[in-house]
Amino acid sequence: MSIVTSVVVTPIAFRDPPLLNASGIHEPWALRSIIEVVTDDGTYGLSESYGDEQTLSQLEKVAPKLVGLDVFHLNTLHRIVQETVGGGQPAKTGMELAPGTVQATTVPRIFAAFEVAFLDLMGKLTGRSVCELLGGKVRETVPFSAYLFYKYAKHKFADDPWVDKWGEVLTPDDVVRSAKQMIDEYGFQSIKLKGGVFEPEEELEAIKALRKAFPGYPLRIDPNGNWSVETTKRLLPQMDGVLQYLEDPSPGKDAMAEVHDVSSMPLATNMCVIGFFDFPEAIRKQSVDVILSDHHYWGGLQATRELGQICRTWDLGLSMHSNSHMGISLMAMAHAAATIDNLSYACDTHYPWQEEEVIVGGKIAFEDGSVRVTDAPGLGVELDREALKELAENYRKCGIRSRNDVEEMKKYDPTWTGKSPRF
Amino acid sequence: MSIVTSVVVTPIAFRDPPLLNASGIHEPWALRSIIEVVTDDGTYGLSESYGDEQTLSQLEKVAPKLVGLDVFHLNTLHRIVQETVGGGQPAKTGMELAPGTVQATTVPRIFAAFEVAFLDLMGKLTGRSVCELLGGKVRETVPFSAYLFYKYAKHKFADDPWVDKWGEVLTPDDVVRSAKQMIDEYGFQSIKLKGGVFEPEEELEAIKALRKAFPGYPLRIDPNGNWSVETTKRLLPQMDGVLQYLEDPSPGKDAMAEVHDVSSMPLATNMCVIGFFDFPEAIRKQSVDVILSDHHYWGGLQATRELGQICRTWDLGLSMHSNSHMGISLMAMAHAAATIDNLSYACDTHYPWQEEEVIVGGKIAFEDGSVRVTDAPGLGVELDREALKELAENYRKCGIRSRNDVEEMKKYDPTWTGKSPRF
Repeated sequence: MSIVTSVVVTPIAFRDPPLLNASGIHEPWALRSIIEVVTDDGTYGLSESYGDEQTLSQLEKVAPKLVGLDVFHLNTLHRIVQETVGGGQPAKTGMELAPGTVQATTVPRIFAAFEVAFLDLMGKLTGRSVCELLGGKVRETVPFSAYLFYKYAKHKFADDPWVDKWGEVLTPDDVVRSAKQMIDEYGFQSIKLKGGVFEPEEELEAIKALRKAFPGYPLRIDPNGNWSVETTKRLLPQMDGVLQYLEDPSPGKDAMAEVHDVSSMPLATNMCVIGFFDFPEAIRKQSVDVILSDHHYWGGLQATRELGQICRTWDLGLSMHSNSHMGISLMAMAHAAATIDNLSYACDTHYPWQEEEVIVGGKIAFEDGSVRVTDAPGLGVELDREALKELAENYRKCGIRSRNDVEEMKKYDPTWTGKSPRF
Repeated sequence: MSIVTSVVVTPIAFRDPPLLNASGIHEPWALRSIIEVVTDDGTYGLSESYGDEQTLSQLEKVAPKLVGLDVFHLNTLHRIVQETVGGGQPAKTGMELAPGTVQATTVPRIFAAFEVAFLDLMGKLTGRSVCELLGGKVRETVPFSAYLFYKYAKHKFADDPWVDKWGEVLTPDDVVRSAKQMIDEYGFQSIKLKGGVFEPEEELEAIKALRKAFPGYPLRIDPNGNWSVETTKRLLPQMDGVLQYLEDPSPGKDAMAEVHDVSSMPLATNMCVIGFFDFPEAIRKQSVDVILSDHHYWGGLQATRELGQICRTWDLGLSMHSNSHMGISLMAMAHAAATIDNLSYACDTHYPWQEEEVIVGGKIAFEDGSVRVTDAPGLGVELDREALKELAENYRKCGIRSRNDVEEMKKYDPTWTGKSPRF
């Protein structure tokens, strides 16, 4: 059967390295929510979403209203989400470092969290993989990129003695070393560097070092809107022909459009186009060439396919964004990506930065930088309930309730404001 | 099981009244194709599409390549259709009286014909209605409009002695009488008049007579692009506040944009936006306010939902177009429409003009102008094989192989050219 009898939302925390970005630094613990939707025959569907306080409270508000709902009735799920947490006008999208936490994405974000669990259930109930429910694979494996960060060797202000295996990454040589380490382990065939941290010229030195060390590898840099239009324009000649695409160099649709006007490189975004509502303005202004999808805030796996249709229609490229996440999200991302023919770039993932896992079998294996999409019913991943207990215990103990990279950075530098664009 | 073992495409013909339009007059027989896809357990899925020679030959080319395909694998179906009939560049969309026959719609049109049969099978195999496979109903019944035509009492040049029950419709009084007849029988709660036939002022007299006879009923007129921009502008003041929307008054995106610029009435189209490929230009030029969807050439039921997302995103209205069709198409249209919240206008249908039927139980009943969407698995309609034999025999005998309203009109008026805009 297929009627929802209970919904359980479990917040978890897992260790996150001290990764640097435009806004500050990752805290020692990253938060996620694990969503279990159980139907009347005891089958459960899994999903994973943000774990910040606001999302948790919204998930908890919707959860009890889903009891009695047929898991095929996604349109009713959407109405329930809209009615329960959809109050208020969407905020205007400016530049969003964390699109999963802004008001404009509330309805698609909360809908997506449940939609994935419903799809997992629909798959289990019909003996079909989630990607078959999305029309079936157009590719057997989904390529991801090596997602590099500048970082410190360890969290200076954490009680936890954990030290990650990636060491300090502050110089171009460090960046190349960490790329080698990650590519050796995962086999990635393209590279993204999270920028917006140091002087842009320094970061471009790292890009040039990567170009030299990895000839033929597509390269990207993502300054998270931390470069002014003037700065970006000054740097364009150094990047042109070197990068596969330039991600969010400057903040907002107008700034991106100004850059776009003079750039021969494709411009990508997950900051100034974070939902369907951003398209009319972004297309009118010709702000971007490539959209970084993310089912977690775009409204789920089917919405990601609709996004694919819009990108096909307006001849925009389509890639995929990531936050810190576990294997449930990774498989959901892979199922969607496997079914969208024009999602033709390697997807982003933070997955290598996490050591912990909440699914049976531990960390998902990569083959040559790609994830093989399972043919098993649903998402093809099962919850490791012992691991869930431990990670839920982490959440209780860690004291973090909402991601705040700015506040964490203030511990290192009390003058830090996170103001952007800084360069 | 779910593997395709055979595909049967049967062309049929059924009687069509002498309906007048911008291009000429309907021939005595309308053509359709009935598509049966059979899987390895003997289950069959149904669909209905165009019956013109070109579509039939394209369906026949694709059909044998579907043997062995899993009916859940719609993305593979799309690839096969693209590879088999997708050669050549799409033609430029100008003004299309019959979007289902132009080259630009070949791939979506042929894909849609099979997609509906595959969805019917997926529904039967999982015990789910097609609308549940599309996320479930947002409305229990789908409203349609009374779709009025100017017409002659009978086909003057047909051997067939058949005379339809609608009589001659040439004057405003006739139009009101036929509206009453149709609304009495079907309960429709909005009215569309196919225009572009007589002098625009005459047709607007009919609209005014309808307004008087049916106060409160939303009214539409569709001149099929047969009015020049100048003519449309002259007529706008007479229509403003009277029409729910004005459908394709003038031909093409530029002409529609010129009208749009000065119209306070919504402009609708199924002629200058007939596929996703038309959106960038139509939105840039602000040519239209309402898109008339049609899964038969937009690429199927899922594509109609994607179209819904685009309309939601750009704040366009969404309605539904129709050609002469049988009950399989009517139910497919209703299943899609039942799942799309922003498909908020009554849909068009030619269904009342047809007396014959190819499904078990005969003509589908309307309740207060609406079709109730079945909860039965799949589309919820079964093929009447005796009726299919008769209609296939009609096809063999009727001699018509492609719709040609212009040639038919030349029999009445040898000077007829069908050139447009005529007014």
